[in-house]
Amino acid sequence: MRVAQPQTARCGVSRRSAVSVKAQAVASPAPATAQLKTDVAKIAVLGASGYTGAEVVRLCALHPNIKVTVLTGDKQAGKAFSDVFPHLMTASNVPKLVKIDDVNWSDVDAAFCCLPHATTQAVIKNLPSSLKVVDLSADFRLKDPKSYAEWYGHEHAALDLQKEAVYGLTEIYRDQVKKARLLANPGCYPTCSQLPLYPLVKAGLVLPDDIIIDAKSGVSGAGRAAKESNLYCEIAEGINSYAVGSHRHMPEIEQGLSEAAGAPVRISFTPHLMNLSRGMQCTMYVKTAPGVTADDLRSHLEKAYEGEHFVKVLPKGVIPHTRHVRGSNFALMNVFPDRLPGRAVVICCIDNLVKGASGQGLQNLNLMMGWPETTALGQLAMFP
Amino acid sequence: MRVAQPQTARCGVSRRSAVSVKAQAVASPAPATAQLKTDVAKIAVLGASGYTGAEVVRLCALHPNIKVTVLTGDKQAGKAFSDVFPHLMTASNVPKLVKIDDVNWSDVDAAFCCLPHATTQAVIKNLPSSLKVVDLSADFRLKDPKSYAEWYGHEHAALDLQKEAVYGLTEIYRDQVKKARLLANPGCYPTCSQLPLYPLVKAGLVLPDDIIIDAKSGVSGAGRAAKESNLYCEIAEGINSYAVGSHRHMPEIEQGLSEAAGAPVRISFTPHLMNLSRGMQCTMYVKTAPGVTADDLRSHLEKAYEGEHFVKVLPKGVIPHTRHVRGSNFALMNVFPDRLPGRAVVICCIDNLVKGASGQGLQNLNLMMGWPETTALGQLAMFP
Amino acid sequence: MRVAQPQTARCGVSRRSAVSVKAQAVASPAPATAQLKTDVAKIAVLGASGYTGAEVVRLCALHPNIKVTVLTGDKQAGKAFSDVFPHLMTASNVPKLVKIDDVNWSDVDAAFCCLPHATTQAVIKNLPSSLKVVDLSADFRLKDPKSYAEWYGHEHAALDLQKEAVYGLTEIYRDQVKKARLLANPGCYPTCSQLPLYPLVKAGLVLPDDIIIDAKSGVSGAGRAAKESNLYCEIAEGINSYAVGSHRHMPEIEQGLSEAAGAPVRISFTPHLMNLSRGMQCTMYVKTAPGVTADDLRSHLEKAYEGEHFVKVLPKGVIPHTRHVRGSNFALMNVFPDRLPGRAVVICCIDNLVKGASGQGLQNLNLMMGWPETTALGQLAMFP
Amino acid sequence: MRVAQPQTARCGVSRRSAVSVKAQAVASPAPATAQLKTDVAKIAVLGASGYTGAEVVRLCALHPNIKVTVLTGDKQAGKAFSDVFPHLMTASNVPKLVKIDDVNWSDVDAAFCCLPHATTQAVIKNLPSSLKVVDLSADFRLKDPKSYAEWYGHEHAALDLQKEAVYGLTEIYRDQVKKARLLANPGCYPTCSQLPLYPLVKAGLVLPDDIIIDAKSGVSGAGRAAKESNLYCEIAEGINSYAVGSHRHMPEIEQGLSEAAGAPVRISFTPHLMNLSRGMQCTMYVKTAPGVTADDLRSHLEKAYEGEHFVKVLPKGVIPHTRHVRGSNFALMNVFPDRLPGRAVVICCIDNLVKGASGQGLQNLNLMMGWPETTALGQLAMFP
Repeated sequence: MRVAQPQTARCGVSRRSAVSVKAQAVASPAPATAQLKTDVAKIAVLGASGYTGAEVVRLCALHPNIKVTVLTGDKQAGKAFSDVFPHLMTASNVPKLVKIDDVNWSDVDAAFCCLPHATTQAVIKNLPSSLKVVDLSADFRLKDPKSYAEWYGHEHAALDLQKEAVYGLTEIYRDQVKKARLLANPGCYPTCSQLPLYPLVKAGLVLPDDIIIDAKSGVSGAGRAAKESNLYCEIAEGINSYAVGSHRHMPEIEQGLSEAAGAPVRISFTPHLMNLSRGMQCTMYVKTAPGVTADDLRSHLEKAYEGEHFVKVLPKGVIPHTRHVRGSNFALMNVFPDRLPGRAVVICCIDNLVKGASGQGLQNLNLMMGWPETTALGQLAMFP
Repeated sequence: MRVAQPQTARCGVSRRSAVSVKAQAVASPAPATAQLKTDVAKIAVLGASGYTGAEVVRLCALHPNIKVTVLTGDKQAGKAFSDVFPHLMTASNVPKLVKIDDVNWSDVDAAFCCLPHATTQAVIKNLPSSLKVVDLSADFRLKDPKSYAEWYGHEHAALDLQKEAVYGLTEIYRDQVKKARLLANPGCYPTCSQLPLYPLVKAGLVLPDDIIIDAKSGVSGAGRAAKESNLYCEIAEGINSYAVGSHRHMPEIEQGLSEAAGAPVRISFTPHLMNLSRGMQCTMYVKTAPGVTADDLRSHLEKAYEGEHFVKVLPKGVIPHTRHVRGSNFALMNVFPDRLPGRAVVICCIDNLVKGASGQGLQNLNLMMGWPETTALGQLAMFP
Repeated sequence: MRVAQPQTARCGVSRRSAVSVKAQAVASPAPATAQLKTDVAKIAVLGASGYTGAEVVRLCALHPNIKVTVLTGDKQAGKAFSDVFPHLMTASNVPKLVKIDDVNWSDVDAAFCCLPHATTQAVIKNLPSSLKVVDLSADFRLKDPKSYAEWYGHEHAALDLQKEAVYGLTEIYRDQVKKARLLANPGCYPTCSQLPLYPLVKAGLVLPDDIIIDAKSGVSGAGRAAKESNLYCEIAEGINSYAVGSHRHMPEIEQGLSEAAGAPVRISFTPHLMNLSRGMQCTMYVKTAPGVTADDLRSHLEKAYEGEHFVKVLPKGVIPHTRHVRGSNFALMNVFPDRLPGRAVVICCIDNLVKGASGQGLQNLNLMMGWPETTALGQLAMFP
Repeated sequence: MRVAQPQTARCGVSRRSAVSVKAQAVASPAPATAQLKTDVAKIAVLGASGYTGAEVVRLCALHPNIKVTVLTGDKQAGKAFSDVFPHLMTASNVPKLVKIDDVNWSDVDAAFCCLPHATTQAVIKNLPSSLKVVDLSADFRLKDPKSYAEWYGHEHAALDLQKEAVYGLTEIYRDQVKKARLLANPGCYPTCSQLPLYPLVKAGLVLPDDIIIDAKSGVSGAGRAAKESNLYCEIAEGINSYAVGSHRHMPEIEQGLSEAAGAPVRISFTPHLMNLSRGMQCTMYVKTAPGVTADDLRSHLEKAYEGEHFVKVLPKGVIPHTRHVRGSNFALMNVFPDRLPGRAVVICCIDNLVKGASGQGLQNLNLMMGWPETTALGQLAMFP
């Protein structure tokens, strides 16, 4: 975002998001202090037996400032992490899974919380308040307790924390993120849709009362729970809509766009389950303000994300593909003219497990800890 | 469609579309005359080396009134069909591929034309006018020569035939189809979108000036040509929009909806390429007429397709999946309330190669030949 | 098999396996008697909520002599079948699921038993002995009670039935199958491997003491149970061996090959899980008898399966693909020279749910009921 | 390999393959000299428009000592690399594609050659002899000119270079690799099969005259050429053997095993095409020397690869999966008892594009340049 200010100088490293990944990867350890013991933080991953937990571990493996010291998984406690996620058997120094009640918190500087919705608030409430927390659940995303109760079916159990939590759509709320102690990491759909829509609505270029989001997601977003509906045979070679008109990411998107619009916004949001492990696309059908063209929207996004490392507005006419972000923290977006006058088509693609979850979580932790924002996020997309 | 009248009595078989497939399958040979030699038609498949051609052969293999006597494929001429499509090696009595110029037309009663767009018109122009033709290309779908020239980049070369051609969206135009000699088989997207939209627009339940179609298709729609962009590695585990605002199925859909609305209609249409071999879904975002609800739309579709064998309006709240029509000629549809007031979400799923191409083609030929409409189309969807 | 004799004349229909599917499909209702009420059998599918049960229903939907009157599924009892398998919602007259204890057996002529291993024997023991039963579980495949106890970890609970059961590898044991009341339908791997190996071992062309089977199967073979290891994300874009040296199909294959060899045979058998819904290939590495070539093996298989409808020995040099049998009851096989002297490579492909389970089950029931063997099995493979 | 000796001290960095990736990633820039301009090598990728070329670029993006200055692609010359591989659009400072004839070789320190077989030798012959070259084609793998002529159908055009070339199966030939100027990077199948077989044959634990390799590979191994047989629809949901008894990787494997055995070795080798983008497994059926057990083989491999970073012998009984190495440079292997006495089953999995091609290529270049062997190869497998 254009409005982003320079990072605080906590580590003497100002944000240089326009700089290339590689340059940063090389540069990151450059300040001698970065090699000091005090700059290696001890990190816990709570709920490490799910896909977002595993993805946190995968990304952190290349992080020079992170040592993963705690992995929890109540049902899998006692197991080696490589028994649960053999693809990470080659990671070094990964601890065994333990029960969350058995964690020695004095040995932890920060935590990724990858627990299921609802149970998260109870857990975080009892953590030492000194701990920095990136919460990947939905528990602290909705600011309005009534809205939370309406969509999640029960009163929130940690209202104080809910007030404290910072919503971590990094490129939009970077300044708040830097100061956050408890960070509510955005949902995958809210990330993919708000990244383009927030600036457009905020600038008044898109009418806020007729936003239609046709969202498509890979299956990993549904987690690793053993459900019949997510079996290979049930998913392969087929697609379907789901939760039409009732998905819980709807109020989260509406919250952000309402803030951008300065008035309550309702959206049309229809998610689709794709036969993909990873990958998410939002195809957004918007009405433009009078006199505004698709090109104007595109230009505005270009300016809004100028210098951003992870958000790329593609050249005019180039269509984003989910496969071009697979495994990476990038968001690709573009705007196209619609055949219907006064309309435009906005497209954004992310990897739901990276920019839509663990990658953005690490991006946020980097900021919260004063590390360069792109640290350990330099992996390019894997294709084919 | 409600308005459908009883079939002509050509074969003494009135349409009984509400009757089960199996009942018909059993019943179909029942009339003694159906076993007569005169009721076995000799069929040619022109352009049999592509996927739609192969699908025609697959379906016809179970047809008691069809004998496939000619298969053309200019590049593959001389080859056994099983060399080109080994999965059909077990079909009986399938002829070799020949060049189209070498066909003895006196030995053919009807033809499926599965040739590429543009070349088709030149070929069909030179066929004996006695031949019944089901054309699966786009050449005869657009009635307006100007529109054809605009979207296809050249003047139409067979304007007389274009006038004669009947547009074969079977459930909508059944009466005309029965009398057709040259049938323009609808495109896959136009089938999937018009089946629900046509009756809704015609009844004035949906506003015709703000119809948004988010369409998703499997790769087989792109044919068997060896293109880099359709390689397994380019498609697997990824999705993308394509031809945003410029797909040639757009004017075809607009033509149908304009007729339904009684006034010119423009639509928003964005196709997406899915990592599926087969399967198509259109998710349609529509504005309802004042006072009309999503339930009203659903009820209207139920009535419109009451008794139709191949079009099923699902029970309220049940979401269509592409995998539930794979390999079959069925269209599944439903309507859902939208969170945005005055809007509804309409969903339709088909197999793009069956109801979206070869299956509907055979359904049309059945009508054109006076055979029971469901003959050889009784295969249920294959899952998993 | 060459040795197959004409069918018994129970229904006055001699086997004509060399006749084409279509010819048979047309011909099947031809004998006037076939239309009599007495020729429509009432069929129960026990355990209809799994993939093999669904596949039985899919295939039977095109069968002129079968009316499915009972579907059981203890956990899903009370549900419409279309709630459990929406792809079969278009099947006509399919009953609701009931508990097995609530079945009125007087209304059933024959049953497909698709229950889990071990529970099957208890269930079948209590069925009326007049009922013809095709059992798709492993419960009655092993003839030797000791072998059963060794591989399944408990004594067999229905030893009398075990003696009575006929092993239904149709092309090999057709004569016994015709007379069977209780049929043990072969496992998928045993079908795919024995079809080529049995005749070769029996003829002494392959040495029985060094047979190596590298087997590859789609995931549907593992059933519809909600297991983490079968989730889409766990299977997609990856393969692995499993149950190396310990798969329960091993003794079943050994039983058949021992019979063929006239002496105990042990095999090397390594199954692999493929990211396929359907499809199975066995690649078999065999030592030939002195002086015997790969071509000799191929020729022998050609003779052995001459006139067989469902078993095809491909032309010399042509490689079988699983995709060329998907959805069909065919087995494709071939033999290739090995670079190692004295060795040959034998390949066989089937659809594990059809020829490897429900299709062969129906093929067997057809014989047991005196119907033409290919009835309702005329569907060609679906590709792409 | 056990026999591996310490690296030469060219850069003062001894090999520390047992050290963790992360430790190395952090440590790699540690020697102050590593940051010197002289330690950044200018790298050309010849044939960068194919999958192995793209994979080289992806991996090099994280390499602190590499600057990619030249990308060639004769057909795509003039295009931005991101037009050809959009997933790498986020890589920094990637040059445009140029014709190979337009390269200024004075600006290149080393080259990855990803050109097609046969054309490679002509190209490399004309490169400056000062250039270090890692050749990913098959052109320099076979040492015997007769064998090359036999398998490739023509005389080799650069026999001098063929003599000079070092075969780069890194863990086996590390010492030679370090001194290489022209490196013949092994084929994917030869890597996957020789890694376990070479030490076992060399130690005399496996009989060399009856080695059977059932190999399974993803489609990316076939490259990005637009072939009908590699279209999504032709590959998805199906598998097949190919090139039975005639694959060109056969003599390459035989060459290595012959050297290990000290006598000519012939193998049985049957490759299978999987519906995977990436992933390779060799399932190897071997006869053990008298008295030698599967456990003995496993123990020997454990010792042989002790301390190796990229080769992992899994714990007893744990089965390697291709999905656990996807995107990474690791090889996972294990040995299992066979039911046939005197036999064992050896399994190895790699990512065919990484350890089977570009990753091993970079591993070799690291050694040739005197950089730590694991530099830029620290990425863990991506799952799901």
